[in-house]
Amino acid sequence: MNLLIRGGTVVDSETSYRADVLCQNGRIVAIGEDLAAPTGCQIVEAGGCLVMPGGIDPHTHMQLPFMGTIASDDFFSGTAAGIAGGTTSIIDFVIPNPQQSLMEAFNTWRGWAEKAAGDYAFHVAVTWWDETVHRDMGVLATEHGVQSFKHFMAYKNAIMCDDEALVNSFSRCIELGALPTVHAENGELVFQLQKQLLDKGMTGPSSHPLSRPPAVEGEAANRAIRIAEVLGTPIYVVHVSCEESLNAIARARGEGQRVFGEVLAGHLLIDESVYQSEDFTFAAGHVMSPPFRPKHHQDALWQGLQAGHLQTTATDHCCFCAPQKAAGKNDFTKIPNGCAGIEDRMSVLWHYGVGSGRLTPSEFVRVTSTNAAQIFNLYPRKGAVRVGADADLVVWDAQASRTISAKTHHQNIDFNVFEGRTVTGIAVHTIANGKLVWTDGDLRAERGAGRYLPRACGPAYAEANARRLAQTSWRHQA
Amino acid sequence: MNLLIRGGTVVDSETSYRADVLCQNGRIVAIGEDLAAPTGCQIVEAGGCLVMPGGIDPHTHMQLPFMGTIASDDFFSGTAAGIAGGTTSIIDFVIPNPQQSLMEAFNTWRGWAEKAAGDYAFHVAVTWWDETVHRDMGVLATEHGVQSFKHFMAYKNAIMCDDEALVNSFSRCIELGALPTVHAENGELVFQLQKQLLDKGMTGPSSHPLSRPPAVEGEAANRAIRIAEVLGTPIYVVHVSCEESLNAIARARGEGQRVFGEVLAGHLLIDESVYQSEDFTFAAGHVMSPPFRPKHHQDALWQGLQAGHLQTTATDHCCFCAPQKAAGKNDFTKIPNGCAGIEDRMSVLWHYGVGSGRLTPSEFVRVTSTNAAQIFNLYPRKGAVRVGADADLVVWDAQASRTISAKTHHQNIDFNVFEGRTVTGIAVHTIANGKLVWTDGDLRAERGAGRYLPRACGPAYAEANARRLAQTSWRHQA
Amino acid sequence: MNLLIRGGTVVDSETSYRADVLCQNGRIVAIGEDLAAPTGCQIVEAGGCLVMPGGIDPHTHMQLPFMGTIASDDFFSGTAAGIAGGTTSIIDFVIPNPQQSLMEAFNTWRGWAEKAAGDYAFHVAVTWWDETVHRDMGVLATEHGVQSFKHFMAYKNAIMCDDEALVNSFSRCIELGALPTVHAENGELVFQLQKQLLDKGMTGPSSHPLSRPPAVEGEAANRAIRIAEVLGTPIYVVHVSCEESLNAIARARGEGQRVFGEVLAGHLLIDESVYQSEDFTFAAGHVMSPPFRPKHHQDALWQGLQAGHLQTTATDHCCFCAPQKAAGKNDFTKIPNGCAGIEDRMSVLWHYGVGSGRLTPSEFVRVTSTNAAQIFNLYPRKGAVRVGADADLVVWDAQASRTISAKTHHQNIDFNVFEGRTVTGIAVHTIANGKLVWTDGDLRAERGAGRYLPRACGPAYAEANARRLAQTSWRHQA
Amino acid sequence: MNLLIRGGTVVDSETSYRADVLCQNGRIVAIGEDLAAPTGCQIVEAGGCLVMPGGIDPHTHMQLPFMGTIASDDFFSGTAAGIAGGTTSIIDFVIPNPQQSLMEAFNTWRGWAEKAAGDYAFHVAVTWWDETVHRDMGVLATEHGVQSFKHFMAYKNAIMCDDEALVNSFSRCIELGALPTVHAENGELVFQLQKQLLDKGMTGPSSHPLSRPPAVEGEAANRAIRIAEVLGTPIYVVHVSCEESLNAIARARGEGQRVFGEVLAGHLLIDESVYQSEDFTFAAGHVMSPPFRPKHHQDALWQGLQAGHLQTTATDHCCFCAPQKAAGKNDFTKIPNGCAGIEDRMSVLWHYGVGSGRLTPSEFVRVTSTNAAQIFNLYPRKGAVRVGADADLVVWDAQASRTISAKTHHQNIDFNVFEGRTVTGIAVHTIANGKLVWTDGDLRAERGAGRYLPRACGPAYAEANARRLAQTSWRHQA
Repeated sequence: MNLLIRGGTVVDSETSYRADVLCQNGRIVAIGEDLAAPTGCQIVEAGGCLVMPGGIDPHTHMQLPFMGTIASDDFFSGTAAGIAGGTTSIIDFVIPNPQQSLMEAFNTWRGWAEKAAGDYAFHVAVTWWDETVHRDMGVLATEHGVQSFKHFMAYKNAIMCDDEALVNSFSRCIELGALPTVHAENGELVFQLQKQLLDKGMTGPSSHPLSRPPAVEGEAANRAIRIAEVLGTPIYVVHVSCEESLNAIARARGEGQRVFGEVLAGHLLIDESVYQSEDFTFAAGHVMSPPFRPKHHQDALWQGLQAGHLQTTATDHCCFCAPQKAAGKNDFTKIPNGCAGIEDRMSVLWHYGVGSGRLTPSEFVRVTSTNAAQIFNLYPRKGAVRVGADADLVVWDAQASRTISAKTHHQNIDFNVFEGRTVTGIAVHTIANGKLVWTDGDLRAERGAGRYLPRACGPAYAEANARRLAQTSWRHQA
Repeated sequence: MNLLIRGGTVVDSETSYRADVLCQNGRIVAIGEDLAAPTGCQIVEAGGCLVMPGGIDPHTHMQLPFMGTIASDDFFSGTAAGIAGGTTSIIDFVIPNPQQSLMEAFNTWRGWAEKAAGDYAFHVAVTWWDETVHRDMGVLATEHGVQSFKHFMAYKNAIMCDDEALVNSFSRCIELGALPTVHAENGELVFQLQKQLLDKGMTGPSSHPLSRPPAVEGEAANRAIRIAEVLGTPIYVVHVSCEESLNAIARARGEGQRVFGEVLAGHLLIDESVYQSEDFTFAAGHVMSPPFRPKHHQDALWQGLQAGHLQTTATDHCCFCAPQKAAGKNDFTKIPNGCAGIEDRMSVLWHYGVGSGRLTPSEFVRVTSTNAAQIFNLYPRKGAVRVGADADLVVWDAQASRTISAKTHHQNIDFNVFEGRTVTGIAVHTIANGKLVWTDGDLRAERGAGRYLPRACGPAYAEANARRLAQTSWRHQA
Repeated sequence: MNLLIRGGTVVDSETSYRADVLCQNGRIVAIGEDLAAPTGCQIVEAGGCLVMPGGIDPHTHMQLPFMGTIASDDFFSGTAAGIAGGTTSIIDFVIPNPQQSLMEAFNTWRGWAEKAAGDYAFHVAVTWWDETVHRDMGVLATEHGVQSFKHFMAYKNAIMCDDEALVNSFSRCIELGALPTVHAENGELVFQLQKQLLDKGMTGPSSHPLSRPPAVEGEAANRAIRIAEVLGTPIYVVHVSCEESLNAIARARGEGQRVFGEVLAGHLLIDESVYQSEDFTFAAGHVMSPPFRPKHHQDALWQGLQAGHLQTTATDHCCFCAPQKAAGKNDFTKIPNGCAGIEDRMSVLWHYGVGSGRLTPSEFVRVTSTNAAQIFNLYPRKGAVRVGADADLVVWDAQASRTISAKTHHQNIDFNVFEGRTVTGIAVHTIANGKLVWTDGDLRAERGAGRYLPRACGPAYAEANARRLAQTSWRHQA
Repeated sequence: MNLLIRGGTVVDSETSYRADVLCQNGRIVAIGEDLAAPTGCQIVEAGGCLVMPGGIDPHTHMQLPFMGTIASDDFFSGTAAGIAGGTTSIIDFVIPNPQQSLMEAFNTWRGWAEKAAGDYAFHVAVTWWDETVHRDMGVLATEHGVQSFKHFMAYKNAIMCDDEALVNSFSRCIELGALPTVHAENGELVFQLQKQLLDKGMTGPSSHPLSRPPAVEGEAANRAIRIAEVLGTPIYVVHVSCEESLNAIARARGEGQRVFGEVLAGHLLIDESVYQSEDFTFAAGHVMSPPFRPKHHQDALWQGLQAGHLQTTATDHCCFCAPQKAAGKNDFTKIPNGCAGIEDRMSVLWHYGVGSGRLTPSEFVRVTSTNAAQIFNLYPRKGAVRVGADADLVVWDAQASRTISAKTHHQNIDFNVFEGRTVTGIAVHTIANGKLVWTDGDLRAERGAGRYLPRACGPAYAEANARRLAQTSWRHQA
């Protein structure tokens, strides 16, 4: 099983250089100029193209049961669509119901994911708290390769964590060397605002952003970050959508705290005017949480990405088709929350990021794969073009263009939030686990080819954090 | 009942000028140069002195039942001590137990306060939530002159408000035109840190600040302010003790939000090294919440006061003597929280504020009386040297000095956090309700002379706020 | 010469209350309910109206010789227009040519101003430096009532001050207890950008804002403020037009520095799109420096005013008619810089400030008169409704509306930047020096009635500053 | 010429892993586990040690003629001392006198540097401006590998650049794709403060920090950054020593501007109390500009490094011995400015950075070599452990300790600002250009072995910047 990528320019997180890349048995085995092709080796011509690590989407929800329905992209169709866009790995979420055993939920998701075409890992959500949750977190971390736990600060009366659960779970993460992550929205305020809006008869999708204003997100982000500061743990804030939460992250980072922030391709590009549409299907098609924001937030998010306040880009890929969205026809709070994106993230980031001069090509690699791999301890197996790394690569044509559309995308959804945008910079070939799975428009993703990616706790930043904690005497005093 | 203050320089919140002040029947009736003294008029010679509004301490706890004991200064002794220092009015707190009726608690406090020597008003705490609380807030606001409601974000398992109660109570305040105030500390974190410290055997007073680090206060202040922003209400943060909460206030004010901040005389001067004392009585004598902070916070607080981010100064006057503090000998969490200060606030502010050039004399007046009067709707009855205002005045000798000591103070407590400091700028005469109640060291405070001060809802800033809310269409749409 | 304002509600910088106001010989002599009218007293009925201090415009340029022409409103027509809008005092600028004696220039301006209808004071600009400038500053401050000196950081090769002159002049201000003020724009960058734009053939008014982007202003504001910080003087930044300079002020104030900021009515309302007009007359009519800014700056400026980061509102009133503006037809750098505004500032501030709930009526008084009077040491003669103050008052109908237009305004200019805006809140009567000079649309301003207002150095904040300086030992050590 | 580093753990800017490193002819030719040693290959045993890129010190002044004397470490002794500490490359400064030809100065420095033991590059200072400077910058950039130009904003009447020169030189850098760097201190203020201090007879070294307070640096940093913003160029601020300039950088980065900041090892560790010493030699030994700062700045700088606001660490290595420093015995402004550090930077950064948990080992690599190499376009030749990179490596024993002292260091100076500090983490072997030049305390640095490192203009971030500029239409319009 040999594959040689020939004639391209390798771009990694640090630099770029002319080199061929030879893959064997799913690994990169040589990088260099004018490599000889072993006998029988498959050749991928990359002349004029860039060769980069396959994208990692650290935030997806394949076939998620949510709000009374199930996300329409399953682990196969969703990861396949990712491959068509140059993304070769995902980190999805195990979300137990309150009172449900974490292990049981984990096993359920593991079963669902067996059909995946690309590699996958899992964050596990902590949606309630008792001693069994404490115990299961340990089992997951030490025996099942779960290095990150998710906490929803929104969705009151459902999966919302209160401060008590947050404090307990963050403390447990410290013991394990695991990373807590948060969905930052003040669930109490959302609940109250939804009620007020519905009471006034404001039932349409245009009420969705009104029920979750930026201050609601900024407050929760700040709260989670300060709890993390007091307890002494790194923290990762998912889908930062607005200046308020970005600023909370930037402030804490400026004080030397290890806070990571993720931004979605959609939040970088789309503004809240979409919710004003008269067309329910269009407006509801954009309903996700946090919602799209007024325009100035997009500028802020790009700046946050450029400044390094935000490290990763993701999609929160969670597909619901028009008939599913219709459940909220008369009540915006019942519209299933979620949008697609896994197929388009890489192109959108390249076009609007690199094309505009905001990002260098190496910075593009960092924010689309390397940083996620380092934060979630998949590096250098993922996110790197290095000898020994997994042969997950994308051959990128920085000059080629395509126009995004639901009509042509591979995602199993009838809507695309980037509909009609023409982007320059596309994946011409995608190699996953050493195999050519997307080439010139031909999607060869294979059901079940994806592998579960166990992730050890305690990456380098966690070790540094532990060193730091050990020096603040009182915390760990006898 | 006439009294003429002769020969002084009037200092009000805007300027200063040479003038005599004539008082009749408890009111100021004339201000001017060389006023003629009516027959039989008492003369107070103020030559070389300043004549300013009597101080208002907007944060006291007289005879508070707390942590198993009762604060040792009662409404008489406490207000009398205030008079000796130039403070003529207080705003104390009614604190119902959870599940206790607000009206019942209010009536209890009203009874206790009848012995007061100076005028007084009440903030009422919301420590729990149901429909009767909603109703009683209305009764208090419309029939009993309560314009401000207090919320404790700390003291878990006791009087702590969770987000749900905060949101409900703030919303009710908007309906009433009342002002919500908060004690900002994240109670969940305090609870957890106390537990961790006790588990490690760190039971002494030096653990007190460790259990309530600045981030705990900053988080809560930010949360309360953002909830206020989302709902659309002004908010007042009591005893801002650190840069973190100050910054939360300054940020919100910079965005045009009406946020008020109060700082205690103690927090401006004293740093956390006091808790390191080997002497339990000394260390415990300083135990209050929020605790005293590392030195750089004092600079920040002064700057906040100068910049106008903080508007009022107070004391959180709540006295516990050594035998009371001893309850926490083996467990710092059982030391009754509270320190004295009502007698010394004015001198401390003058000496360190005006004496150092940080404040002008008019700014001193604003932060010791005028601003509190305006925020809590006592102005211009209080906080002003104007014709028609209450004759609550202090004749101030800016050159005279005194050395603060528990041995000589009038507060009913065996400890003084300012012990041994010599301050320049003292009250030589205090006039309350037109009577000379403190003169050259002679305290003539009269038990029961103080009157309850009802305060109407809806001062000017509240009206402006309502105008602003009315313009954000969706909030008050049909 | 008696005049009684009857039946109105007095609004001052602290509060509002029902009262009549009696004026005699140009002074307020009584304020109270139901005052008796002396015999022969003129009565102004103010029922349903507010009675406030007449406006002070601390930034005007009447009949200024500038860029080869002379501002079209002279001291009479300009102050008369102010009176029609409720503004009774101005502070204009003496601007010597480089190498011209300050005294000579001062005397020239004094002569020009004798025709003024309202009272006036002068800031004197320091446009160059040598020992005679040092000396003349002293003469002006001690013998001619000049308490403030202006510095232009823009206008290279003309009146621009370099750092050396700034440092020398600020140091001299400290000696005198005078206040330095700055026009903050980096003149070197403006010069360079103008050159680049002209070189590219971009000669129209749309290049004006491109030649003076916000960063140019923010840089200069920060520089001036930091020089002031290092030397130890308060400082006043004129016409703050953008977030960048506002932030520089807010940062310094947050550190306890005494920095004052002024905002123009125009910068609060108008955005830079005006420069895109095809109509040269319209676009050029808006050419002033700093220019109008992108929309988000207007929000920021309002917030700065609400937060108290900015204390005063002004107009930079400097009129040039279309034929004058035409001098820059083929070269935007030759368009005389300046816009009118003195007549409309009060209404614009009330309508957009108080009407929207951003400001209370008392805050309106502060930012339209009281704060300027205090900063420039005219208080309480001006900016106050107090017994003894000058009888400069405006009777304000908060319900009445008018539509602003060059067709109807009293300013001697054929253009109005607020053209067509209908504002609610207007001056129905204006009293200056105890005389009714504007009443129900009848302008009775009298040529030469205005008086020069000498201003002593060393107001309260300057005294505090001196106290502070004296405590930083090394500065004033022997 | 083969050399095999065996048994170590490679740490690069992204990760760490067990691997041997084989060097041939000055290059790294293989990295892998259990590499076979070619015949005759020199073996360096690295068991238990880390193998990292040799340090790059981007800020040194070897044998600089300055303030009437010449820095005592020449290019040989200074680079040799660097090698003893694990630093294998430097970027020194060519500093023409005003009016001196840049080419002439460049050639002079090139001659001096021929004796260097390690590789070196040059920043060239622009100390004046005319057409020949413009031309020579082009020659240097295109023919001599100079990619960075330095500007002193301090040293009035000597090498100080005024705004006009800054604007011209920055504009020229944009044309060339070169990077402007600045020494940020407001020279006018320094000049004035020095004068004031000397006038007061405050002539000792304790006046040095008083003459250059943090605001002086913060102002200049902000000014340079804003000029860079307006013109559209990346910028690099050398030796950021205080919170004020750090904040200026962080603000600009947060807005998406490409600003780089450098911090000196000394500024991270040493506070201004050193200038209070009675011992002139000790105090003067610490005289450099910017000076050491009050303690809280050290915390801020570490946080800036952790947050990524600062990217590089350097030393400003510029040695003057006690007899040289004595020139300022009676006038602190005559003390030659400069301190040593090249030998100790790596250990100090490891001990206080990695040892404390502030930095991970990979972050250490970034801030001691990789980032400097990328910013100054030496990457991946320098700053990388990659096949093809120069074999400049350090074998690091993270457990070993040494005590820093002038008695034992290799720097040619009789003083060490880190005297007496025991650091854990030291260079046991240094390999430069594939040769073992420091091994277990044996310094084998070779005179003249160092090579000049030409650096092309236009690294990746410069290309991105050009892309961005091209999109702001008006700038480059015809």
